[in-house]
Parts: sequence; C-alpha cells; structure tokens
Amino acid sequence: MGKANTRNKILEHAGRIVRQKGFNNTGIQEILDSAGVPKGSFYFYFKSKDDLGLALIDHYGESLVLLRNSLLAKATGTPLERLRKLFVGMRLFFSQEEWRSGCPIGNLTQEMGALSDAFRSRLGAVFNIMQDAIRECLEQAVSCKELDAELDVDELAHFILDSWEGALLRMKAEGNTQPLMLFERVIFGRVLSR
Amino acid sequence: MGKANTRNKILEHAGRIVRQKGFNNTGIQEILDSAGVPKGSFYFYFKSKDDLGLALIDHYGESLVLLRNSLLAKATGTPLERLRKLFVGMRLFFSQEEWRSGCPIGNLTQEMGALSDAFRSRLGAVFNIMQDAIRECLEQAVSCKELDAELDVDELAHFILDSWEGALLRMKAEGNTQPLMLFERVIFGRVLSR
Repeated sequence: MGKANTRNKILEHAGRIVRQKGFNNTGIQEILDSAGVPKGSFYFYFKSKDDLGLALIDHYGESLVLLRNSLLAKATGTPLERLRKLFVGMRLFFSQEEWRSGCPIGNLTQEMGALSDAFRSRLGAVFNIMQDAIRECLEQAVSCKELDAELDVDELAHFILDSWEGALLRMKAEGNTQPLMLFERVIFGRVLSR
Repeated sequence: MGKANTRNKILEHAGRIVRQKGFNNTGIQEILDSAGVPKGSFYFYFKSKDDLGLALIDHYGESLVLLRNSLLAKATGTPLERLRKLFVGMRLFFSQEEWRSGCPIGNLTQEMGALSDAFRSRLGAVFNIMQDAIRECLEQAVSCKELDAELDVDELAHFILDSWEGALLRMKAEGNTQPLMLFERVIFGRVLSR
C-alpha cells in the first residue's frame, strides 16, 4: 500500500468514527485498530491528533468540492432546479442510517469551534466552499430572471447554508430526514419564490 | 446549603463546563471541583454521568420556559414584533464572549443525538418547547392578519427553529453573532413578510 493510500485509509476510518462518536471521544488507537495500521505509521503521516483533525476537515472540503461539481455544476436544469438537486442529493445520502452521523463539518464546529482557533478557521473555509457554490447558483438565477434582481444573494446564500446546517442538526434530534424535506419546501417554496 | 441548592449548583457548574468543552470531554471530578462539592454528594443526586446529562437537558428546558414567558408572552407589540424580540434577546445573550458556548441543546444534540436514544428524545422535547412557542406566536399573527392565513404555521415554526439552530452553529465557525443578525433579517424580512 502506497503512502497516499495509507494516509487516506487513516482519514477514512477516522472520519467514520469521529462522525459517530465526536472528535474528543475518539482515540488514535481506535482509529488505527479500525484501519489496521500500526501506531508508528500514524506519526509518519500526522504530527498529533489535532493535526489529523485538521487534515480531516481538508478531506471533507475536497469531498464537498467533488459533490458540488457533480450535483451542481454538471447537473441540467435552471439554476434553482440544480440547487434543489444538490440538496435532494445530500438528503438522500442522509437517509437510511446515515442520519445518525450528521454533517461532519457541523459536528466538528459544534465540538471544536469554541476550543480551537485553528479548527475554527479551517471549518470556516469549508463552509465558504458551500456558501460560494450556493451564491454562484443564486447569481445565475438572477441573471436568467429566475430570481428578482433586488435580492441580496450573498446574504441569502449564507442564510440557506446556515438553515441547512440547522436542519441537519434537527435531523439528529428527530432521528429522521423530515427536517431536510421541510428545509427544501420552505427555501424553494417561500424564500426563493418570486 | 439545602439539597435543592447543591443539586442546582452541580447542574450550573456542569452546564458551564459542558457548554465550553462538550459532554464527553467533561469529567465528573472536574464538575465537582468547580462546584466545590464532594464526590459522595454527586451520587446522592445523580445515578451516573448520563443521569446528570439528562437532568441538564431538563434544566435547560426549564430556563427556556422562563425565557419564553419573559420575552414572548409578557412582551408588548404585535405577535411578530414579540417573536422578533425573543430572537433579539437571545442574540444579545450570545454577544460578547458567549458566542463560544453556543446553544447548549444544539451542542448536546450534535454530540449525543446519534449515541443515545434517551438523550435524543429528551433533547427533542426541549426543541418542541421552543417550536410550540414560535408556532403560537405565528398563529396569533395569522389571527390578527399580520400573516397570511394560508401559511402552514406548523411547518414555518419548525423551519424557523432549525434555521436559528443553524445560525447559532455558524456563529461558532465565524466567531461572532453576525449569522444571528442575518437570520433575523431573512426570517422577518422575507420568510414572514406578506
């Protein structure tokens, strides 16, 4: 197994366990046992557990870029139809048992945002990837007159992302994806209606 | 110090530390050291750390009922003006350094929602206290024609609470209360506008 593969393997197992149990609640040994990687290798790839946490955020950021490209940029339909497909696609991912894990970026923000400035700024950057993607879509919707030109698309993109994170949080309290469907109905039926 | 006082003292110190560090990351001994209560007393009031966590959720629920009563029921103005005062009042609480702590119910949901059904159902009940208060306010707004009668107030109350929780989460990523002000502008300027 090459170096990049071992590093990715550690990140994938860390991601799964951290999403289920939280970052503070997860031990390095547990991740290594799950990945089948010896402890010495861990410190070859990561300086510390915090270093792994920061790499995990970048890893999620890269996944989000791929998701944005496949669900938003390459999808067909009007800008708002494509935006809705993005949220439907993410909701389908969270169906089944995945509601338990929630949004990895939201989870880490809740847990680490107040404790570590390094985590906070890195998490903020990943939020911005999504917010920029939503804003671009809204700008296109304004250009093709699907949305009114007087709307503040920066503000709306920020609000939409925050509401989505709130719906993902509520999903964990309700134990189902109903809050995500409600989010779609209100955002596309009222907030983004003409 | 009476029994109720010692129990409340443990809950208040636990609440402050858990809001800063998370539930899993907080030890019983740390809470007792902070509260100045001997360990034997802890087990007189709580069966276990989980039992303390559940009592903490009830404690927050009771605080929310008081907050709802003072900011919503007793406030003057139209129903929507009173609802806005509730969110402004909560935002002012989170200003200054309090942005770091975030919403205790949101924090615990993110951390414990997937791990414990007992926590999840208790957290869901506290969300419902707030959602019912918002819904009642929206119903009054419909009654006095401040909102259109065709609006689904159940759905909107659910959406507003989820969006608020998302704004509180984003506050922790941005390190300021700007997401809470944005929430107010979009909810009252667009979602609840006629």
